[in-house]
Amino acid sequence: MIDVYSTATPNGHKVHILLEELALPYRVHHIDISAGDQFTPDFLAISPNNKIPAIVDADGPDGLPISLFESGAILLYLAGKTGKFIGSTDREKFTTLQWLMFQMGGVGPMLGQAHHFRIYAPEKIDYAYNRYTNEAQRLYGVLNRQLADHTYLTGSDYTIADIATFPWIRSWKNQGIELGEFVHVQRWFDDISARPAVQRGVEVLADLRKPLTDDKSREVLFGSAQYAKR
Amino acid sequence: MIDVYSTATPNGHKVHILLEELALPYRVHHIDISAGDQFTPDFLAISPNNKIPAIVDADGPDGLPISLFESGAILLYLAGKTGKFIGSTDREKFTTLQWLMFQMGGVGPMLGQAHHFRIYAPEKIDYAYNRYTNEAQRLYGVLNRQLADHTYLTGSDYTIADIATFPWIRSWKNQGIELGEFVHVQRWFDDISARPAVQRGVEVLADLRKPLTDDKSREVLFGSAQYAKR
Repeated sequence: MIDVYSTATPNGHKVHILLEELALPYRVHHIDISAGDQFTPDFLAISPNNKIPAIVDADGPDGLPISLFESGAILLYLAGKTGKFIGSTDREKFTTLQWLMFQMGGVGPMLGQAHHFRIYAPEKIDYAYNRYTNEAQRLYGVLNRQLADHTYLTGSDYTIADIATFPWIRSWKNQGIELGEFVHVQRWFDDISARPAVQRGVEVLADLRKPLTDDKSREVLFGSAQYAKR
Repeated sequence: MIDVYSTATPNGHKVHILLEELALPYRVHHIDISAGDQFTPDFLAISPNNKIPAIVDADGPDGLPISLFESGAILLYLAGKTGKFIGSTDREKFTTLQWLMFQMGGVGPMLGQAHHFRIYAPEKIDYAYNRYTNEAQRLYGVLNRQLADHTYLTGSDYTIADIATFPWIRSWKNQGIELGEFVHVQRWFDDISARPAVQRGVEVLADLRKPLTDDKSREVLFGSAQYAKR
């Protein structure tokens, strides 16, 4: 059994979708990030960066429990455990890995900043709003060129690079993107959206999602609680 | 022979340091990011996200050449190729992987934003300046707690998680950090700084580094060239 500590945000969806695709038994525990659940000692013990998702797999690589944080590490762990959605040759694995890293280092953090300055920030700041909206356009351009001649990000097979990227693209409206302008991304998005496991994955914990734009949530998510402790 | 397409920035340093630590034969090619070298068709063919570093290893996993982009993927590839700096058991490898992902998804992108709003942005924007300076404080706090009872980020061994993180910590002054306030990070930083391979790695291409705060560099790095093409 895999215990998942998570919430219904893009980084949470990645793990929920992969677990549904793999049909692995899992149990999900809601971490209410607007209420500060991510700062409890129990959670920090498995996720020292106070971010979701984290997992505990009772059946780790040596038969003992293992805990992991960072969605990208969790995806690689689960793909490695099952041998699925990662490619079969080393070449395919490293090709998948580079597009997963592109999601982890670019798509996620930068689209997250677009969300912040377009939706969560308490005031509109033109320079930052434009900086991250432009970066979103650039990132969608990179994806669109790659998907112009690849069915999925790394070739003909659906992999954890797609699973990592898809949940961020779901929020294109919050990034100042017109998805229809990126025709290859749109085609890929529609294809993945139609997968039953994906449809189940994005619903995990969705009923517990809250708006995060009230002052109290802002303070918990972006305020002094984030950096008070050393 | 490994060809490295790079520049003397933190993401470039990661690969230069690891290659020096591994004593692998490599040849470095300067990509002048202030002049737009990252948008040439030759470079985009190996690095579709128009970012450094990228590598071409003539001796890929199947004996054929392989190209890779994204520093985190390159580090995992080189560690996998040599079996070094990645841990020996699967548990150690996944522990290393999660801290590498923490660098790729958090330390790198967010300290990069701190650099942007503290140094590169054409005007001081208080909200963004404070947001990323605070996030830098938070990230150093996470590192400091981990290093309080671990010699290196993942335990007693120096790994690619340390190699990935170190080049970003070198620029602590540009992030509004007083390194001496994070005593365990300081100890770790001094330890790694003393390694001869690290000292060689951070000098690779350093003589070609240019200030990036003139208007022309700003336009190339942060302006419309970044997102013009789809």
